[in-house]
Amino acid sequence: MTYVTFPQAKSLDFAAIGRLCIDLNANEINRPMEETMTFTKYVGGSPANITIGMSRLGMKTAFIGKIANDQMGRFIADYLQRNAIDTSNVVTDQTGAVTGLAFTEIKSPSDCSILMYRNNVADLKLTPGEVQESLIAQAKVLLISGTALAQSPSREAVFQALNYAKKHGAVIVFDLDYRPYTWTSPEETAVYYNLAAEKCDIILGTREEFDMMEQFEHNPEKDDQITAAKWFDYSAKIVIIKHGKEGSIAYTPDGIGHRAKSFPAKVVKTFGAGDSYAAGFIYGVMQGWTLEKSMEYGSAAACIVISSHSCSDAMPTAAQVDAYIERCNRGEITAS
Amino acid sequence: MTYVTFPQAKSLDFAAIGRLCIDLNANEINRPMEETMTFTKYVGGSPANITIGMSRLGMKTAFIGKIANDQMGRFIADYLQRNAIDTSNVVTDQTGAVTGLAFTEIKSPSDCSILMYRNNVADLKLTPGEVQESLIAQAKVLLISGTALAQSPSREAVFQALNYAKKHGAVIVFDLDYRPYTWTSPEETAVYYNLAAEKCDIILGTREEFDMMEQFEHNPEKDDQITAAKWFDYSAKIVIIKHGKEGSIAYTPDGIGHRAKSFPAKVVKTFGAGDSYAAGFIYGVMQGWTLEKSMEYGSAAACIVISSHSCSDAMPTAAQVDAYIERCNRGEITAS
Amino acid sequence: MTYVTFPQAKSLDFAAIGRLCIDLNANEINRPMEETMTFTKYVGGSPANITIGMSRLGMKTAFIGKIANDQMGRFIADYLQRNAIDTSNVVTDQTGAVTGLAFTEIKSPSDCSILMYRNNVADLKLTPGEVQESLIAQAKVLLISGTALAQSPSREAVFQALNYAKKHGAVIVFDLDYRPYTWTSPEETAVYYNLAAEKCDIILGTREEFDMMEQFEHNPEKDDQITAAKWFDYSAKIVIIKHGKEGSIAYTPDGIGHRAKSFPAKVVKTFGAGDSYAAGFIYGVMQGWTLEKSMEYGSAAACIVISSHSCSDAMPTAAQVDAYIERCNRGEITAS
Amino acid sequence: MTYVTFPQAKSLDFAAIGRLCIDLNANEINRPMEETMTFTKYVGGSPANITIGMSRLGMKTAFIGKIANDQMGRFIADYLQRNAIDTSNVVTDQTGAVTGLAFTEIKSPSDCSILMYRNNVADLKLTPGEVQESLIAQAKVLLISGTALAQSPSREAVFQALNYAKKHGAVIVFDLDYRPYTWTSPEETAVYYNLAAEKCDIILGTREEFDMMEQFEHNPEKDDQITAAKWFDYSAKIVIIKHGKEGSIAYTPDGIGHRAKSFPAKVVKTFGAGDSYAAGFIYGVMQGWTLEKSMEYGSAAACIVISSHSCSDAMPTAAQVDAYIERCNRGEITAS
Repeated sequence: MTYVTFPQAKSLDFAAIGRLCIDLNANEINRPMEETMTFTKYVGGSPANITIGMSRLGMKTAFIGKIANDQMGRFIADYLQRNAIDTSNVVTDQTGAVTGLAFTEIKSPSDCSILMYRNNVADLKLTPGEVQESLIAQAKVLLISGTALAQSPSREAVFQALNYAKKHGAVIVFDLDYRPYTWTSPEETAVYYNLAAEKCDIILGTREEFDMMEQFEHNPEKDDQITAAKWFDYSAKIVIIKHGKEGSIAYTPDGIGHRAKSFPAKVVKTFGAGDSYAAGFIYGVMQGWTLEKSMEYGSAAACIVISSHSCSDAMPTAAQVDAYIERCNRGEITAS
Repeated sequence: MTYVTFPQAKSLDFAAIGRLCIDLNANEINRPMEETMTFTKYVGGSPANITIGMSRLGMKTAFIGKIANDQMGRFIADYLQRNAIDTSNVVTDQTGAVTGLAFTEIKSPSDCSILMYRNNVADLKLTPGEVQESLIAQAKVLLISGTALAQSPSREAVFQALNYAKKHGAVIVFDLDYRPYTWTSPEETAVYYNLAAEKCDIILGTREEFDMMEQFEHNPEKDDQITAAKWFDYSAKIVIIKHGKEGSIAYTPDGIGHRAKSFPAKVVKTFGAGDSYAAGFIYGVMQGWTLEKSMEYGSAAACIVISSHSCSDAMPTAAQVDAYIERCNRGEITAS
Repeated sequence: MTYVTFPQAKSLDFAAIGRLCIDLNANEINRPMEETMTFTKYVGGSPANITIGMSRLGMKTAFIGKIANDQMGRFIADYLQRNAIDTSNVVTDQTGAVTGLAFTEIKSPSDCSILMYRNNVADLKLTPGEVQESLIAQAKVLLISGTALAQSPSREAVFQALNYAKKHGAVIVFDLDYRPYTWTSPEETAVYYNLAAEKCDIILGTREEFDMMEQFEHNPEKDDQITAAKWFDYSAKIVIIKHGKEGSIAYTPDGIGHRAKSFPAKVVKTFGAGDSYAAGFIYGVMQGWTLEKSMEYGSAAACIVISSHSCSDAMPTAAQVDAYIERCNRGEITAS
Repeated sequence: MTYVTFPQAKSLDFAAIGRLCIDLNANEINRPMEETMTFTKYVGGSPANITIGMSRLGMKTAFIGKIANDQMGRFIADYLQRNAIDTSNVVTDQTGAVTGLAFTEIKSPSDCSILMYRNNVADLKLTPGEVQESLIAQAKVLLISGTALAQSPSREAVFQALNYAKKHGAVIVFDLDYRPYTWTSPEETAVYYNLAAEKCDIILGTREEFDMMEQFEHNPEKDDQITAAKWFDYSAKIVIIKHGKEGSIAYTPDGIGHRAKSFPAKVVKTFGAGDSYAAGFIYGVMQGWTLEKSMEYGSAAACIVISSHSCSDAMPTAAQVDAYIERCNRGEITAS
């Protein structure tokens, strides 16, 4: 069954708005960061990673965001362009803002953390007036990311992008991507997450992220069906709730909770799993695949990324995802 | 024809959320404020004035807001209580915020201005967690005022109040009351005004206020019908657009632009006209009167206030409004 | 004995730098402010009051400060000019700052308090580049006030004024006037008070103000002699420490603690006592009087002010002070 | 001739207060940073580098500063300890501040730049109450660095450290180290630099740094003698003014301008030259050497650092400096 219909006549497959930053990944891993002496630079930020993933999968993509007027900002713009992502709506900050940084610490494959630099970052300075209506008018999908709601004026830029997407009929995907830093309070977070989610067609998040959004509501059992039903009353057609190791469930208005099998992986680190999953899943849905098949595809894409050192740079092509699934099916890959 | 149906079973006629402040009105008028030596203190703030007006007209009312923990804040709470307004959701700030002030300057009946003190004011510190769902659940009407959207956390408190009002079926009135100070940019203002207006049943504002809200849209002729139609696509049933001396028009989804006659007045100053108009109009609609009769009632209430020295303290009772209309009909009142 | 020598050739007797604000004095007194309905407007701020006092006593005076670009600011400039104070270095703010306010509450002659509005005030926005060296070069005395040290850029403007005063040989008077609001921490306060006091010839303050300045030092008995001795090691020639009802003592490097008799007064309120005392005392010292006679003169001036409704507007002329002392000497005035 | 006498009985040779941060040095050099993919982590910050230099030269040293409560902060503390620097007054921030970062770009040996991260950094959060008087009481030398004056509360901590150093007789060295970011305005900078410099015995800076300090003064020819003479009127005994390629001159109250010969070097980058020069020079003066010999020693230390990839980690031992001078004298080292 088809839960979401995409406006096929539009020329751009996918646009995302939000965070563009730099990951500085520890080269010497399996140790505390205090003992890491060198770091490698990658483009990062959840919506940036997803867009790179979509582009690698062959989609025509664009990004809406803001970069610092410095070497890091220029590196980001150049990397996006080299990945065939349209950067005509990537604006350069003129106020002296810096590029957000994420230093990664990989103590073990299952013990990873991030040291964030998010003060005065360029990506949160995108204004509503800088968002190009003409770009969104041509997009089949607009993806928004929760971190871009954390501060003004980026928050207002996202709401304006939602207005344009609604007006022009784009399918809207909301990747919750909640990160407490940069938010003033959980109450503030919940209010804006809910205002944005009301307008979205596909919502992806962890059970904990949905709990945060329900702090003013009554869902004492943290019941997925209650959570999903609320959004079906607004605009949603698919609500994916991720339960960590228990897997993800895609809820639909017909009451079904769709599940998919997962794949083994030789895990290096956990970063980037959600972003590659989102890219693979959205790609599948846009191909007209079942939700189950789309979720499987997302899972395979995620396995490839968590087996690698980087996030953005490891985003797979369709051929790589297909090959990974085949190798798993042949039993050639087992869990680490 | 009835455009709005009120939930009659509810026990509270009217609740408002937003600004509570102090007006310091020049005692020596018809001169620049530099030459005014003494000032008289009144409760002020648009939603406060409207609530006082509704209470004087005999409605059961409550206020949702925040006051400074000082003499000015205590004066406000006491005045509301003396006017039979429920203050159980008027919270006292504990952070050292001050009470907003508005010094009025009356150079002539038609040349009035205000000197505002809006830095670190208590009313903008109301949080979403402080808004009582149980109070809104009992209200037939919730009135929100644009100034409360100007800053966090008051902005989020208003959106949370809107959520509760929607959930419990209150009729929502939006008094635009746009004042540029305290807002960061016109773009930011437009984004939040539009997000709030989407959820409202009755919207009242000047043509200029609606223009501000349309800065990302195409209404080059500033056409009232285009303006109103947008909101009928969301939740609105009545959109009142005020055209200054040309009078106000109440638009309804049936395409009608309702107009009402106005009354003469011996004008002292223009402050408070909009607030008393809103109180009179909402009162009329709640009585089941036609929009035309409700607008006339609002106009008469406004005439009484602009003929007086204060705003809040001059809000009329129903008997006073009726008497004013009768005296006008008998030709006993002529314009100053 | 002469403790301080003034540069007699200079054309300006007295310049002060710092706070200019508005006092809003309760008209209905001997009650809580909640019950006060009207307020009268006066120029206020400790250095402004002292300068008005000096001008009334016949001195040639000037003020260095910043006013809001509004009706309150223009009232202040006009009042200073009408009191023959040179305002050529009173700068008008262009950033939208407001005029500081002080609402006075007079519950009884001995129970007075102030409700301050000090957010975004113009007086704290004076910059070092706006301080006119040429004006200070002509001044016999420069008075600085502690409140002007509370925030940047006013803080730096005061230090720059001190540089000019030192360079050109003005006698520097420091009126401590410590008010905790607007300061970030007691530690910060102590650091800047000490840096400023190092450069001053005459320091006036309460025992509590000197205690605040000594928080990083060892004076467990709060011994006046230890306090004064520290400043004699820098630039000070007179250190006046006020002990409330026990009276004030003027310490000098010769080890003497000078005391003066006080006068009775019919007290209305306590505000303004310190400012009128400072004006009377400095005036006396500039006349070449003994410290004891100068302190008496300050006390008499203070009695006149606390017997009146206002501070600035009640500052006496020399004839009024002389008359008050004579009447006291004749027993015509007794304490209230 | 001896210009400065050190309090030899004290147990600690050298203490510094101020910036502790992380340098992230480009591994792939001689290209724009956009093309640099990996970075190596070092301890940085001018006073940190000088203290490491002093420790390497055999001095007993301590640091007064504040580090972030994260992996970067712990790395800094550990590195200082491994370099035998007393960290008992290195405080850990508890407010969520981050570690300052400096990404270095080395386009060529003579075209180097830095990308700074200075928002919400831990080092600027040191408070005056955290500075240990007992530590400064035992120090022969206290070095302050201009960057620590850039913001509160670090600014006040430096002034408090100066108070303690004055009280206990430490020789105070001021390394101007002016960096415009983090300062609000040049005026503010000049005011605090001058207030600090008044209390210092040895002042080191570039001609441009002294120009910045003289913006309120009259030195139209930028005459070194006028500059130095001002500080001799306060506390200074040596004022070193650096003229880039024309070399440095050490001015003394006897009117002499001391110069020293320089050494050739195979330059990798210019970073760290000033810090190693300062360490070598102060070390020499503390040995009782002439200013000329001390300056030579500083120059040789600087040559070693600019021939290396890092700043802090390349600080030489005395044996290394001696060897470098000998090799230069034997003609074994020539300029790159």
